[in-house]
Parts: sequence; structure tokens; C-alpha cells
Amino acid sequence: MGPHPAVAAIRLAVRRVLHDLLNENPEPPAGERPLVLVACSGGADSMALASALAFEAPKLGVRAGGITVDHGLQPGSDARAEDVVLRMSALGLAPAESVAVQVGRASDRAAHGASYTGGGGRRVGPEAAARDARYAALDEAADRLGATAVLLGHTRDDQAETVLLGLARGSGIRSLSGMAAVSGADGRYRRPFLLLDRQTARKACLVQHLPVWDDPHNTDPAFTRSRLRHEGLPALEKALGKGVVEALARTAQLSRDDADALDAWAAQAAASVRDAAGLLECAKLYALPPAVRRRILRRAAIEAGAPAGALFARHIEEVDRLITGWRGQGEINLPGRVVAQRQGGRLVIRQG
Amino acid sequence: MGPHPAVAAIRLAVRRVLHDLLNENPEPPAGERPLVLVACSGGADSMALASALAFEAPKLGVRAGGITVDHGLQPGSDARAEDVVLRMSALGLAPAESVAVQVGRASDRAAHGASYTGGGGRRVGPEAAARDARYAALDEAADRLGATAVLLGHTRDDQAETVLLGLARGSGIRSLSGMAAVSGADGRYRRPFLLLDRQTARKACLVQHLPVWDDPHNTDPAFTRSRLRHEGLPALEKALGKGVVEALARTAQLSRDDADALDAWAAQAAASVRDAAGLLECAKLYALPPAVRRRILRRAAIEAGAPAGALFARHIEEVDRLITGWRGQGEINLPGRVVAQRQGGRLVIRQG
Repeated sequence: MGPHPAVAAIRLAVRRVLHDLLNENPEPPAGERPLVLVACSGGADSMALASALAFEAPKLGVRAGGITVDHGLQPGSDARAEDVVLRMSALGLAPAESVAVQVGRASDRAAHGASYTGGGGRRVGPEAAARDARYAALDEAADRLGATAVLLGHTRDDQAETVLLGLARGSGIRSLSGMAAVSGADGRYRRPFLLLDRQTARKACLVQHLPVWDDPHNTDPAFTRSRLRHEGLPALEKALGKGVVEALARTAQLSRDDADALDAWAAQAAASVRDAAGLLECAKLYALPPAVRRRILRRAAIEAGAPAGALFARHIEEVDRLITGWRGQGEINLPGRVVAQRQGGRLVIRQG
Repeated sequence: MGPHPAVAAIRLAVRRVLHDLLNENPEPPAGERPLVLVACSGGADSMALASALAFEAPKLGVRAGGITVDHGLQPGSDARAEDVVLRMSALGLAPAESVAVQVGRASDRAAHGASYTGGGGRRVGPEAAARDARYAALDEAADRLGATAVLLGHTRDDQAETVLLGLARGSGIRSLSGMAAVSGADGRYRRPFLLLDRQTARKACLVQHLPVWDDPHNTDPAFTRSRLRHEGLPALEKALGKGVVEALARTAQLSRDDADALDAWAAQAAASVRDAAGLLECAKLYALPPAVRRRILRRAAIEAGAPAGALFARHIEEVDRLITGWRGQGEINLPGRVVAQRQGGRLVIRQG
């Protein structure tokens, strides 16, 4: 008798990713078997992932290890992290480690005002601060241990939530493209469960008698993602039908491909619309499709020093009107003390 | 004292569209003032639109008329349509007409099975059937009366709902692009209120003492859009914050521009990936970004006879694997008896 369908599904998903990794890295360092880590919170998704990695890796000559991140946000989080380490060890993961990070300390918050400022100058809330700290810790652990990859347990349901969060920003298709199956430096992070639903991961833990820990943040209505999971998405499913999660996940993939293609077009076109002095020529910009032109303008503003996270669609629209609705407007002020100005048929974007 | 801010807002929105129309059609037929129609259901949005058109048109030398469509779906709909005609006449609209259409008659439904088959071979529900019939009637009336344009009362809230309905299809950014501000043959249809919220239209009717009629379909939970309006969207706003409607409307605009740019790229690239015999060359297709390649494949399938509405992302993905994951697959069957096949480095898509 084969494994339960849910267990078969999680193992197949991990096996596919391990095959990808072996195909991409055909020559491991001399005499060493490659190491693949799982990032495990002790929740159902990542416990299912850990169990599948522990089962599949040895069959493919891969070492399987696990890391749990102690965010230190709740009392007793260190004890819980040690508990997750024991559970990972019990699955046969070695090394199995806990790494502690510090997120959103009162002193940090005071230094940055009400909100934390993450990489790239974007203003972010406590959820994003915890995420940044978590990835930094996982990067450090992967480097230290010489891991080929780090597997993350995000499911199709997480992806659907991420798309809705992006939709709420209203900043275009890049923010609808959710999480990538492959991301990070050198494609280090892999998400084997991105097409698998959360219910399958839960079921796989249940039938394998794996204890799981439910993060109270996941049901805390103070957190946007939690409200979305428990209220927003169910209401949307009630209105639109059960296929919503799948449709959102598919939207993510299609949007990602579309955004990649348009970014590539804009990168290529950006060179062809500059004059000999490297200035943007308004007439040539005007001839481009709006979607491409606005991406070039956005890139130019960022290159001039505008922080990407503070640059909104309305800023770019205003700069675009220097091209498409020219009536002698003055300088346009952008975030990061960047100024856009039309001068003699050229668009000049620079830090003021 | 000027008009109430809500009335000022609806008038400004209509004035902008009338200016656009006059700029686009600087030479009206000899001696005749151009005629602009409003499509009016008697609901708050279109009554507000009718009132603003009646106020603004004469100041710009434009004749203002109104059409109401009697869908015949409820008992007494003909009497109600006559009532709307009287209300339009009272606003000063001339001509003011009711046109009757027949939608989803039992005999139609029996002939087409459970669902109505609309233009382009797509399977559509009763809401889409009513919409198709409505636009056909408006087209006929506009042609007969020689109207320059037909104004439609869709608001930003309608746009947000349309984006969510498109999202539920999961078929990519074109379906996220909602309704266009300008659409139809020769840009006949205009939506002046697409950036205006429903509340403003309601308020404008209230302060102008305009009677409005609430379509019971709008609150009938049997209708997807109604469920979305009264349950889905409010729940999403509760989870994500009040800016959701605005974010969805902005997503529509950005997605539309992106989809237009990618369609243009695909149309241009489609010629360059064909050999002398006009067949698609797999190696050249392979070199394109996935987003562009899949659009070319989709166009080729439609040109071969596949009905656009029956062609889903998964069909195109399967055809795409003939290019990106070639391992000697056989013919792939697509809707409309269209077959895709790889032969000697060429992709052949034809009706079988």
C-alpha cells in the first residue's frame, strides 16, 4: 500500500525541486553530498515540508537539514524553537538548528518613527520587519552551512493571500505576481508547495502523526494577512466560487511573466530613447507604449535616487504628463529630493 | 453659491468627456449639432449621468438624448421603462426613448443548453446575455439616431467589481483590466464616471431631488456581482483597508496598458518567428519571453479556429511545452477541433 495521497503529494512536490537542484548543480564540491535546508516554523506547512525533505533527500544522495528562526516576539519563543529543533532531528534532519533574530525592538521603532524602514528604503510594518530579519538569518545559516538551497513551505493559499495584498496596493502587475517558486541570490530559495493547497499539507501532518504548532499571529486579527485569511478570502470565495485561490495563484504566475517581459522591454528601450549626452528624448518616449514609457520613467527616477518603495503610480503619471500632456509645467518633485523637468525636448531627472 | 460638490463632480466628469468628443470630431455634419446619448436604467448612477449630460451639453452646443433598455426580465419592466423615459424627458433629454430587448428566453436557453452562448463562442451566464442584448440595442439606437457617443454610468465601484470578477477567472492581466473609459466601435461608448465613486452619484441624485430606481438584481444574492458588491468587497475592505476600491480601479488601468503593450509586442513578434512558408519556428519561439510566446500561441490557436472564450491558460501552457519541454509529445487537442503539433522544428496549429 502506498502512502496517503496527501503524503504522496508533498513528497512529489519536494522530489521535483530536488531533481531541479541536482540538474542545476551537477558537480557538487569534491566528495561532498549537497545539503538542502528546510525553513521550519513548526507549523503544518513547514512540518509537512520537513517530513517530505527528510524522506526524499537520502534517496537522491542529498543531505537534509533544518533551520527554525526564533523571532523572539513572544515569551517562550526560545523554548518553542528548541522544541522545533527536536522535531526536525526526530525526522532525521541534520543539522537541525535554531537561529535567533531580533525584530522590531522598541529602540529600533523609536529610531525609525512609527514604522520600520526595510531594505530599498521602503516603509514597512512589523510583519515585513520580521520577514526581513528571518531571511537575513536564513541567508547566514545557508552560507555558514554551505547549503545548496533553502526550502520554504509557502502554499497556494499563501500565494493567493499575497496576490490580494499586492492588489490592495494598486501598484500594478509586479505586485500581483506574488512569491516566486525560485528566488533569492543564485535561486537559493525554493517553494515546492506553491501549487499545493494548505489543506494537503495539514492532512499530510495529520496522517504522519506530526505535531504542529499554530502561530498565534496567523489567527490574530491585528495582522492584515490573518484578516485576509480568515475573513477576506472566505467572503471572496463565497461571492465568486471555490476556484478563487487557484485563480489568484494562476494570476500570480501570469503577472510575473508579463512583468518580466515588460521590464525587459523597458530596459532595452531605455537605451534607445537617450541622446548622445545620455538624456531622455521626449519625442522618442512619446512614441513608446504607455506601459513601457512609464517603466522607463520609473527606472530613471530610481537611478536618480528616488527610493523605489516611496515612488507611487501617481508620481510616475505626473512625470509622464511632461511627455504626453506638455503645457509648460514646472519641475515635478519626487521622493528622495529627486526632480523631474522638461528642458528643450529632453526629460531631465536628477537629485535636486 | 455653486452646486453641491457631488453635483459639481458629476458635471465636471461629463464636461471632460464632451470636450474629448468635440476635440475628436471637430467637424460635425453640416449644420447639425452633434448628439450624445446617455444609457439610463433609472438607477442612481445613470440618473446622475443623465442629469449632468442634460446640464452640460447645451452649453457646448451638443444635443443630449437618452435611451433606456427594457430587458423584459421582470413583470412590469415595460411600464418602468416608460417611467424612465418620462424622467429623462423631464431632465430635458430629447430624444428620450425606450428600446425593448429579449434576453434569455426559455426557448433560447433550451436551444443552448444550460448556458447562453454569446459572441465569440464564449459560454456566458444570464448576466452576460443581458449585457450583450443591451449593447446590441444601444448600438442600434445610436446608429438610427446618428449619435456621436453613448455615455454609460459605470462608476469606480463597478470597475472594482469587474476587476475582482476578472481575477476570479485567473486568466491573466487582460481580464484584470476591467472596463475601458472609451470602448466600442469608433470609441462610441464613454464612461465618464469610471473614476468617480458610487456614493457621489447617489448624493448627486439626492441633492437634485432626482427619483432613482434600485434594480432588484443589484441586491439579489443569486447574482455574482451582487454578492461581490454586498459581501465580497466589504469583507475585503475590512481586511485590507478602505483604499481597496481605488486600488482595484488603478490596477485595471495599469493592467490595461500592460496588456495592450504585450499584445502589440506579440503581434509584431508573430511575424518574425515564421518561416518562408508561414509556419511557426520553434527555435525562434523559444527565444522569446514566455509572456510574449504564449500570446503568439494563443493568437495562432484562435486564428486556426479555436473559440477565444473556450481557450484557457492551461491549453496554452500545454502547447507551450511543445516548445519549452519537447520530449516527443503527440498532437494536442484544443477547443474548436483545433490541433497543435510539433513537426520538424515547426509548430503546426490547424483545425483537425
